[in-house]
Amino acid sequence: MRAHFPFTAILGQTDLKNCLLWTAIDPAIGGVLAMGDRGTAKSTTVRALADMLHAAGISAPVVDLPLGASEDRLLGSLDVDAALARGEVRFRPGLLQEAHRGFLYIDEVNLLDDYLVDLLLDVAASGVNRVERDGLSHQHEAQFVLIGSGNPEEGELRPQLEDRFGLSTHVTTIRDVGVRTEIVRRRLAFDADPDSVLHAFHDQQQDLAGRVSRARNSLDDVTIPHRVSEAAVQLCVECGAVGHRGEIVLVRTARAAAALQGRAEVTTRDILAVAVPVLRHRVAREPFENPTTASARVHNIAVRTVGLHSAA
Amino acid sequence: MRAHFPFTAILGQTDLKNCLLWTAIDPAIGGVLAMGDRGTAKSTTVRALADMLHAAGISAPVVDLPLGASEDRLLGSLDVDAALARGEVRFRPGLLQEAHRGFLYIDEVNLLDDYLVDLLLDVAASGVNRVERDGLSHQHEAQFVLIGSGNPEEGELRPQLEDRFGLSTHVTTIRDVGVRTEIVRRRLAFDADPDSVLHAFHDQQQDLAGRVSRARNSLDDVTIPHRVSEAAVQLCVECGAVGHRGEIVLVRTARAAAALQGRAEVTTRDILAVAVPVLRHRVAREPFENPTTASARVHNIAVRTVGLHSAA
Amino acid sequence: MRAHFPFTAILGQTDLKNCLLWTAIDPAIGGVLAMGDRGTAKSTTVRALADMLHAAGISAPVVDLPLGASEDRLLGSLDVDAALARGEVRFRPGLLQEAHRGFLYIDEVNLLDDYLVDLLLDVAASGVNRVERDGLSHQHEAQFVLIGSGNPEEGELRPQLEDRFGLSTHVTTIRDVGVRTEIVRRRLAFDADPDSVLHAFHDQQQDLAGRVSRARNSLDDVTIPHRVSEAAVQLCVECGAVGHRGEIVLVRTARAAAALQGRAEVTTRDILAVAVPVLRHRVAREPFENPTTASARVHNIAVRTVGLHSAA
Amino acid sequence: MRAHFPFTAILGQTDLKNCLLWTAIDPAIGGVLAMGDRGTAKSTTVRALADMLHAAGISAPVVDLPLGASEDRLLGSLDVDAALARGEVRFRPGLLQEAHRGFLYIDEVNLLDDYLVDLLLDVAASGVNRVERDGLSHQHEAQFVLIGSGNPEEGELRPQLEDRFGLSTHVTTIRDVGVRTEIVRRRLAFDADPDSVLHAFHDQQQDLAGRVSRARNSLDDVTIPHRVSEAAVQLCVECGAVGHRGEIVLVRTARAAAALQGRAEVTTRDILAVAVPVLRHRVAREPFENPTTASARVHNIAVRTVGLHSAA
Amino acid sequence: MRAHFPFTAILGQTDLKNCLLWTAIDPAIGGVLAMGDRGTAKSTTVRALADMLHAAGISAPVVDLPLGASEDRLLGSLDVDAALARGEVRFRPGLLQEAHRGFLYIDEVNLLDDYLVDLLLDVAASGVNRVERDGLSHQHEAQFVLIGSGNPEEGELRPQLEDRFGLSTHVTTIRDVGVRTEIVRRRLAFDADPDSVLHAFHDQQQDLAGRVSRARNSLDDVTIPHRVSEAAVQLCVECGAVGHRGEIVLVRTARAAAALQGRAEVTTRDILAVAVPVLRHRVAREPFENPTTASARVHNIAVRTVGLHSAA
Amino acid sequence: MRAHFPFTAILGQTDLKNCLLWTAIDPAIGGVLAMGDRGTAKSTTVRALADMLHAAGISAPVVDLPLGASEDRLLGSLDVDAALARGEVRFRPGLLQEAHRGFLYIDEVNLLDDYLVDLLLDVAASGVNRVERDGLSHQHEAQFVLIGSGNPEEGELRPQLEDRFGLSTHVTTIRDVGVRTEIVRRRLAFDADPDSVLHAFHDQQQDLAGRVSRARNSLDDVTIPHRVSEAAVQLCVECGAVGHRGEIVLVRTARAAAALQGRAEVTTRDILAVAVPVLRHRVAREPFENPTTASARVHNIAVRTVGLHSAA
Repeated sequence: MRAHFPFTAILGQTDLKNCLLWTAIDPAIGGVLAMGDRGTAKSTTVRALADMLHAAGISAPVVDLPLGASEDRLLGSLDVDAALARGEVRFRPGLLQEAHRGFLYIDEVNLLDDYLVDLLLDVAASGVNRVERDGLSHQHEAQFVLIGSGNPEEGELRPQLEDRFGLSTHVTTIRDVGVRTEIVRRRLAFDADPDSVLHAFHDQQQDLAGRVSRARNSLDDVTIPHRVSEAAVQLCVECGAVGHRGEIVLVRTARAAAALQGRAEVTTRDILAVAVPVLRHRVAREPFENPTTASARVHNIAVRTVGLHSAA
Repeated sequence: MRAHFPFTAILGQTDLKNCLLWTAIDPAIGGVLAMGDRGTAKSTTVRALADMLHAAGISAPVVDLPLGASEDRLLGSLDVDAALARGEVRFRPGLLQEAHRGFLYIDEVNLLDDYLVDLLLDVAASGVNRVERDGLSHQHEAQFVLIGSGNPEEGELRPQLEDRFGLSTHVTTIRDVGVRTEIVRRRLAFDADPDSVLHAFHDQQQDLAGRVSRARNSLDDVTIPHRVSEAAVQLCVECGAVGHRGEIVLVRTARAAAALQGRAEVTTRDILAVAVPVLRHRVAREPFENPTTASARVHNIAVRTVGLHSAA
Repeated sequence: MRAHFPFTAILGQTDLKNCLLWTAIDPAIGGVLAMGDRGTAKSTTVRALADMLHAAGISAPVVDLPLGASEDRLLGSLDVDAALARGEVRFRPGLLQEAHRGFLYIDEVNLLDDYLVDLLLDVAASGVNRVERDGLSHQHEAQFVLIGSGNPEEGELRPQLEDRFGLSTHVTTIRDVGVRTEIVRRRLAFDADPDSVLHAFHDQQQDLAGRVSRARNSLDDVTIPHRVSEAAVQLCVECGAVGHRGEIVLVRTARAAAALQGRAEVTTRDILAVAVPVLRHRVAREPFENPTTASARVHNIAVRTVGLHSAA
Repeated sequence: MRAHFPFTAILGQTDLKNCLLWTAIDPAIGGVLAMGDRGTAKSTTVRALADMLHAAGISAPVVDLPLGASEDRLLGSLDVDAALARGEVRFRPGLLQEAHRGFLYIDEVNLLDDYLVDLLLDVAASGVNRVERDGLSHQHEAQFVLIGSGNPEEGELRPQLEDRFGLSTHVTTIRDVGVRTEIVRRRLAFDADPDSVLHAFHDQQQDLAGRVSRARNSLDDVTIPHRVSEAAVQLCVECGAVGHRGEIVLVRTARAAAALQGRAEVTTRDILAVAVPVLRHRVAREPFENPTTASARVHNIAVRTVGLHSAA
Repeated sequence: MRAHFPFTAILGQTDLKNCLLWTAIDPAIGGVLAMGDRGTAKSTTVRALADMLHAAGISAPVVDLPLGASEDRLLGSLDVDAALARGEVRFRPGLLQEAHRGFLYIDEVNLLDDYLVDLLLDVAASGVNRVERDGLSHQHEAQFVLIGSGNPEEGELRPQLEDRFGLSTHVTTIRDVGVRTEIVRRRLAFDADPDSVLHAFHDQQQDLAGRVSRARNSLDDVTIPHRVSEAAVQLCVECGAVGHRGEIVLVRTARAAAALQGRAEVTTRDILAVAVPVLRHRVAREPFENPTTASARVHNIAVRTVGLHSAA
Repeated sequence: MRAHFPFTAILGQTDLKNCLLWTAIDPAIGGVLAMGDRGTAKSTTVRALADMLHAAGISAPVVDLPLGASEDRLLGSLDVDAALARGEVRFRPGLLQEAHRGFLYIDEVNLLDDYLVDLLLDVAASGVNRVERDGLSHQHEAQFVLIGSGNPEEGELRPQLEDRFGLSTHVTTIRDVGVRTEIVRRRLAFDADPDSVLHAFHDQQQDLAGRVSRARNSLDDVTIPHRVSEAAVQLCVECGAVGHRGEIVLVRTARAAAALQGRAEVTTRDILAVAVPVLRHRVAREPFENPTTASARVHNIAVRTVGLHSAA
């Protein structure tokens, strides 16, 4: 097991890192959909977070779902060896069991069979994987955060599926030359001597891991004032979001954000802080609108709506 | 087994709730097709009803049919273990046996293979599941209400299949901010402390469950006057419904509605009350007509036709 | 085994009922193709006839062919159990054996694989099912009437297959409100108390069953005058029917109709009486012509042609 | 085994009957392609010929190839029973073995998989069926005449395949009312009392069967003058036939025709007599040309070319 | 084993016969692609050559690859019998082993799965067939000449595959009536009395077989002057051939042609003699250009280029 | 095992040879994509390099991935023999294990299933092949350089996959007649007498192999000045490359190039030397731009950007 690059040493990609931290605090937020440019370290970032959480005593396996994985491999199946050798009907765990209390990472989620995405979102929502086939009846807990990434130029997810991801973020290439040169330097330094890099970021890692751990524990005690929920609903109405999932995720994510900052009450500022990743995939897309514009539109509505509310 | 959100605590979605109650009273009405917006708690509502009925001593399992379920899994199949281990030909029950006396829920029914939908509607209509294959000959009772939901933007059902659902309802996002804020509040309250919510709605649940239970028992004793049947037929003629299924479902559903209200005779008002969910998927659709307009059209014809009848 | 609705209690659908009766008298006429509106009790009518015949001592099982049935299930196959357990090569009967001396009913026959329809028509024509595969060589009699129904809006059969059905009838929704109200009344009365309805129609059932039974026995003794055959050919020529099947089915069906009326000789009036169901699927369809117009056209040609003949 | 309708009692369809007789005399001519109207007794004619030949001591089974037949069923395969029960590798004969020295009849040959048609034409050409698979190595003689029928409206064969059939005939509905009435009469007479019909045609059957039998035996002794071969080539050149198969089949078929008439030498008149069925599928089809016109064109070229030759 | 028609008795098709002789002398030239008219004895010619070589002591099996052959059948596979009966892992040879030191003939190669064509060309190029699957690891020599034929009207090969055939020839119907009449005569004479035809061509067969045998043995001793190679390259450049395969095949084939004539040195005349079959499928095809024009174009460039070279 | 043509005897194709040498020195650069003309010895060049490295004691198998290879064959699978015979669960190595420390060569990579390309790139990136299925859990090191070749006229790779190849080169037919004549001469000389050619190039082979071997060992000691990394980033920005993979591969490849020349520090000249193969598949392609123009564009940007940098 070689070590991964430290989470706190990753430069840029603040939105993705926040989304991952919030779902690590409250997995009930639902998965994270991270579409955007290739080669922007999405997979590395998830692994780095898992490493950091693991070091802080928080179990967080990262399991990769290959595009061509069979349903058997994913859900688990009859243990054919035990059946043939000893006539026993035993369950052979699949990727979902491995991912329990951690992250299930799917690269190119937009190319995955809709049926499997749907099935994964079902299990992620219920927290239970129930397998009944080949004479086998087995169920086990399967609480995990689903992370889907992909290049939107190769096709979008169906809105029906997009809507079931809690958060959505759009990842782009960094434009600053200094930051990028530093990224190259850190990468090659880590390849040459991992320990020195791990050592340099040790304190930052400890600090952030501790905050996440405390936020997870205090989550149920954070209070949600009525006007905060009302602001969340109003924002969803203004955005024209379909169904009621938007406002529920909005309030949950705002609570996780408050908890990460160590506060005991959610505010409308928290709603504002999480509005874009919660709502950008829930607003009606205008024809040819690019993701950046959609995010800006959500942000503007949020500022106006929540601002009015806070003022009221 | 964690408890579900109480049926009587669900806000809005009156049409869907009525359809579910009527079919719970008379499963011979046929299934319910619930197309409309995603994220509107359709699945939650079915589960909540089942919980409530169960508490009142009415067996009502809710079984989910995953989109990719095999025919074996659905209907039942040869028990391969028993065959291999002991050479016995035994039946391994499928989802249809589990769903007996309850609900079979299919999300995205419009994406399911037509063949399976057809097969399910056949079994639901006959109340018997007969499996003959792999040297196996087995049949068992399978009385269940088929609930199909889906997003009409992703495709409609074939009219041939639509017509075989007893009732059809169109579910939309609630527009009232106050109601939606209360939905968020109840959801998070339930997550934080299920027992307090269950306790608050205990009496309402008991009352409604009792009414359903009594309606099921009294159904055969509710009388149907000739002019009520005639009004039902006249309404179907005016709507241009194809075949004779419309009027039969109309009378049956009106009878269930009367029974739920504890009455001993069906009236033309009952016909009026159930006309939209019975007929909206049976009228010839005009090009580009949206579901709301179709419902309104059925309602207007019903008011005019049944009104004239009542007057006569 | 619950009883079916009595055949003689079914209102309307005279053409379909006649076609079924004629093929029950002479199965060599070939199957019946019943396309038209959904929800018009086609399946119920077949089952009712079978019940009535059964009560009169005439064996007439009704077997349903599900759309997705495998070839094995349909034709029969190797009995895998016997093979595995005792090393015996035994035949496991399929649906064709079950349907022997009865009816094989296929709903949505227009959606069935052409290959299976073809195979079924072959067996129906030869009266023998011959299975040779998996080391198995078995044949059994399989004399049955194939009944195919479907909605023409979902696709027509290929002309090549249509032509091989002996008779074709077009089933539509009844327009008379009084009749339809009575249909609803009888249906709900039967559901509430089957015995009272069965009792009320007992004599009519006995009478009709007796006539069918006598017609079957006397069929070979009914004579066919030369000018009747000539009128049949002339009619086919006028209609532009392809091949010679039309005139042969025409004469056979006319003979069955005469036998049902207890007569000893076929007349040109019998030809006229059966012309539409025999020929409506054999005339060249004009573009956009609807089934009703095609039937009327056949009828007009028949009146003119046979009329001239009778006069001559 | 019920008797078939007598070959000599079949009215009309002279071309098809001649083609069948010639290939019965010299199977090396290659198969017969009989496209045209449905319901014109193509299958009945083949069976009738086989019956007649059989009665004259000439083995001639007729085997039907169902459209969906597997390659195993067609070619033969490993005998799975023998393998499982006694560990023996044995050949289980397929339809090709059954068809040996007889006819293999394929209805709707134009809908059959090209690969199977090709394979059948290969075996028919070589006269040997060689099966090598599943550890099995077996070969047996398979000399048969391939008869393919079909409706050209449902698609033509690929020219590459058409060209490999020795003869091609176009079968149409008879237009004469008298003939058709007599067809109906004979058909119903045969159904009512097969023996009387068989008796009436006994002598004609004996006579024709005897001529075919003598023609088969004398075939190698019939001489082919050089100018006859030259006329055949000239005719193929004039028709623009591709490759050299046309002239070889032309000479062979003319020889069979001469032998059927009991002559010891082929003449250019024989070439003329067989030209249409040999060449009509080998001439370049003009756009939208119907089969009748193509036949007439071949006939005209034949009269002109062979006439000039005979004169020369 | 019946004898084939003698190679030297085949009239016309000089180009195809030369290509086959050259590849029989040097199989490293690569396969022969023979597209063109159907019915022009392509398969017969290959078989005749093999017979002639066999009679001269040169092993040359001809193996047919049926269009639907499985990969197992082609490459060889696990011997299932040996595995089941005795638990042995043994190789069951496929068609490639049978074709070793001979010809693998594929009719309608343009309809064969690209993947199989590619695989065959790989094995043909390396001379080794290596099978690794089902727990089996086996390799054997597989040196054969691949002969692909087909009708270009039914589709061309992909250029990527065409390019890997060493030689390409276009086969057309002979136009001379005298030659064609003689073809018919020889064919029917051979059918009637094979021995007399074989006897008549015995000396020609012996002579040609001897020349091929001597050419094979002397091939390595034939020298290739530098200016000959240079002329070959110059010709490929002028033709615009892609890659360097053209010039290598050109020099090899010219060497085989020289060896067949018993010479010890290749000349530019040999390059000229083989240019068309080597290069006609390697030049960029002009839109709608027919094969005859393409051949003429290559020939003209060859005359000009090689002529200049020879003069220089 | 016959010897391959010597690497240093291959004329032309300098870009491809450099790419292969650099990835042989640092496999972490990622695979090489070599699209272009067929028949340009791409496969021969890879094999020649492997031979040369092998002779210098550097393990470098070359494994071919056939287009139709199964996933089992590629990754390895359960050893079915061991399972059946002895009940052992054993791993049967696949092509990836064979390719360890060597090259995996895929011809026509653009026609390979995207899923397999993706999977191969994943394993190549992680250096570990982990197989979990059929009750088997096995992992082994799999460090190899993926070489994909193909003809761009038959389709390009998806940009998402292209981007994951470290280097990309475009291979074209050599235009110089002298060079091509020498290629023919060397090829035929090698076929006639391999040893003499191997002997002639022995010293060049030894020298180059030694340089590669030393470069591999010294790689970690080569220093990368900050301005070199900065120049690499600047170049990627100017080219509009998506993501950050470009600059990392650029620096790595420049380091390998410096090491091959025996230097201890990377310079901006090294960046310039490797810019085209690193970036030509990462720049946004302009519509209809051909590969040569794209390469020139990258080169021009590189000269300008790195030149400015070096000057600065």
